[in-house]
Amino acid sequence: MHDRQEPPSGIHPLLSGRFSPYRFDPSAVVDDHALGLLLEAARWAPSAGNSQPWGFFTGRPGEPEHDRILPHLAPSSARWATDAGLLVVALTRRHVDDSQLLYSEFADYDLGQAVAHLTVQAQAMGLAAHQFRAFDMEGLTKELDPNPGWAIVSMVAVGKAADAPAEGRTRHSVAHLRSAPWSRVE
Amino acid sequence: MHDRQEPPSGIHPLLSGRFSPYRFDPSAVVDDHALGLLLEAARWAPSAGNSQPWGFFTGRPGEPEHDRILPHLAPSSARWATDAGLLVVALTRRHVDDSQLLYSEFADYDLGQAVAHLTVQAQAMGLAAHQFRAFDMEGLTKELDPNPGWAIVSMVAVGKAADAPAEGRTRHSVAHLRSAPWSRVE
Repeated sequence: MHDRQEPPSGIHPLLSGRFSPYRFDPSAVVDDHALGLLLEAARWAPSAGNSQPWGFFTGRPGEPEHDRILPHLAPSSARWATDAGLLVVALTRRHVDDSQLLYSEFADYDLGQAVAHLTVQAQAMGLAAHQFRAFDMEGLTKELDPNPGWAIVSMVAVGKAADAPAEGRTRHSVAHLRSAPWSRVE
Repeated sequence: MHDRQEPPSGIHPLLSGRFSPYRFDPSAVVDDHALGLLLEAARWAPSAGNSQPWGFFTGRPGEPEHDRILPHLAPSSARWATDAGLLVVALTRRHVDDSQLLYSEFADYDLGQAVAHLTVQAQAMGLAAHQFRAFDMEGLTKELDPNPGWAIVSMVAVGKAADAPAEGRTRHSVAHLRSAPWSRVE
């Protein structure tokens, strides 16, 4: 069901070279210019009806925003995410204000696209991104207090990777990718 | 609230040059090699816990799969999507089989990432992608009959663009992107 292999050579290097580091170089700074470009990359992602249902809270080491995020990391992510030059909290707008009315049925899907664009831009700047969910969702939501309708979905650590991708990354086969939705046999 | 402008020059060209064409060159074929690379690009996208909750049904003009998709396009998308060299139906696995148990809370988010990777790969190959929801969801779901737990989310038309991006594409400002989740003033 899984292939242990590397991406084929025809994949663009920004995609095939991407991996989620478990170690970041704590001395590598994400400066204002780089931060601006990462957010611009997310900003220009496509979205359903151009709804752009995404928002980002960012913190870099030394910034008060960073101090607001850190206490809510799980021990498993704090070990490596603390060293990253940038932490991004990714939010989506699922609902209109405090109603149950959907703001966009594609809110999560579109946020995923925006974060993917941010990730590709990071790669293009010699940085790497590691998305994670290992944080206290309730505590961080209370701390950041987003507007009604908005929800925290994920976090992204961005910085200079201090490790290499694990050998033999694991993926479902292409056949699986195409047949899984129609075949009970996986 | 919106900026009418172009992406800044520091954004990688594969991201800044991306747009969703409303016209495709009907003579431009997406061959097997290109189709394989598009799916590989999606396949190597990141996902929560490496869950890879995505699946794709593809059809190219002349293929029986294309004929299964076409009747379910809305008139608004049939006008341009029919000419694309490739139609992709993107599915996500939200639930475990026919239970209400989540397969992944990031199913839609991760599918968005995989489609974004497919889109970036298309750009890298001189193709363009236009995602859309203008199709008969019920009819297409009945036609493709995905396994329990799987759901169609979007479609993607991929091909050679036969138009140019509209001038002055519209995006929320970066300030909005950062402040919207915390400020009622938009």
